[in-house]
Amino acid sequence: MVGAGPGDPELITLKGWKALQNADAILYDALVSEELLVEAPESTVKICVGKRAGKHSFRQEDTNRLLVECALKYGHVVRLKGGDPFVFGRGHEEMTYLLNFGIPVNVIPGISSSIAVPALQGVPVTRRHVNESFWVLTGTTRSGSLSEDIRLAVQSTATVIVLMGVRKLPEIASLYNGAGRGDLPAMVIQNGSLPEERVVTGAIRELPEIARKEGIGTPGIILIGEAVGLHRNFSAIVPKALVKSIANAGHSVVPAIK
Amino acid sequence: MVGAGPGDPELITLKGWKALQNADAILYDALVSEELLVEAPESTVKICVGKRAGKHSFRQEDTNRLLVECALKYGHVVRLKGGDPFVFGRGHEEMTYLLNFGIPVNVIPGISSSIAVPALQGVPVTRRHVNESFWVLTGTTRSGSLSEDIRLAVQSTATVIVLMGVRKLPEIASLYNGAGRGDLPAMVIQNGSLPEERVVTGAIRELPEIARKEGIGTPGIILIGEAVGLHRNFSAIVPKALVKSIANAGHSVVPAIK
Repeated sequence: MVGAGPGDPELITLKGWKALQNADAILYDALVSEELLVEAPESTVKICVGKRAGKHSFRQEDTNRLLVECALKYGHVVRLKGGDPFVFGRGHEEMTYLLNFGIPVNVIPGISSSIAVPALQGVPVTRRHVNESFWVLTGTTRSGSLSEDIRLAVQSTATVIVLMGVRKLPEIASLYNGAGRGDLPAMVIQNGSLPEERVVTGAIRELPEIARKEGIGTPGIILIGEAVGLHRNFSAIVPKALVKSIANAGHSVVPAIK
Repeated sequence: MVGAGPGDPELITLKGWKALQNADAILYDALVSEELLVEAPESTVKICVGKRAGKHSFRQEDTNRLLVECALKYGHVVRLKGGDPFVFGRGHEEMTYLLNFGIPVNVIPGISSSIAVPALQGVPVTRRHVNESFWVLTGTTRSGSLSEDIRLAVQSTATVIVLMGVRKLPEIASLYNGAGRGDLPAMVIQNGSLPEERVVTGAIRELPEIARKEGIGTPGIILIGEAVGLHRNFSAIVPKALVKSIANAGHSVVPAIK
């Protein structure tokens, strides 16, 4: 069970890369870079079991069964999943399914987009003097509605990171507005870490309209919180908490990034 | 600015590993594996600027200055930080300091212990049917007190992950008790991903006493939430939400991991 990272093929771990080289078969997701697959021997069986938002090419149950089949047929199978297998990845479901058949499973974590995609934009999910936590939620629950947790998240100092939620952006924005926090800096990052990466930034209250105009789509990550104000697009808006604490500490305010 | 990952030297990214090989100088933290340093050429200057809980061998300001000095003196400097540089790592502070001197900075994310250390114990930070988010907090704020966010976290379905908080375990447990959630599965993982890894598990209300008896210390990660019940030590306690939803979906309950 190997995490491929957020998209850039060089963001796989050394351990994951070695596993690919020793794989008899690879079952990979649609979001995994094709460049990673060439790291495996030519003789390795490669099967795409990918999902994209809205299009389920494989049902989960079929993927589970195929994993067992491949393990019994080929031997060493790498299940290559985008990001980290245990972050909204159903990696744990697949693992328990395999273990139920007596097939041993090793987990090799991957770089989660939730942290790395903001980082590659120069935005830290945590920043001393600004916030003390980050909270990662899915925009797509089984019921189709937003997670109830978002109502607590809105009240926190956390950098709130919503995966698979671009379509819920208007709903999320109105929750922030309703809590009197519509001014918080926010952004959407589409295709993070890839050459085709696109970004929109703005106060959360305005972001749905900005994203709509710019035609931002899936796959994308929504980020909301004071720390997002450290992105270069907000250089005029240094987060309030930072200005206050930097003033207290006697440092100068530094510009936000390259 | 390179993330070294949670401890196991093979959990660095390919990109980070290549950066080490081309480094003129490496400034590394105490928690970074020594095995990673041998990946760099012998001629590379290697300087430990590490911190451990309670012992600050370098002040942040000194590290910032040393980074600038090394960049000007040696050229290509790798700032190698444990985990991910932007997760409570002060990576963003160091980056902005360097940028302020006109020194360009590239960020190479690392595997964050917050997600990977639980994963290596077979615990997913999210699991469909069980929870819909995870929340990462620091146990050590500047004021020395617990982050106020923990009071919201206690009410959520999130897997709550507290970094640098082992000493605050009793305080955290009493917040859960106070909210009537003392039964939630919880664990502490010390030295995650390393050969000397140690784990204690139990309901959050009992965990401080268990950790004390077992002599669990720093560095450690605290995990609280229904998803923690998927750890093999809880095999008798399948999370309630999971039992309910699995019953609804007509699946069989699978055992929790090797």
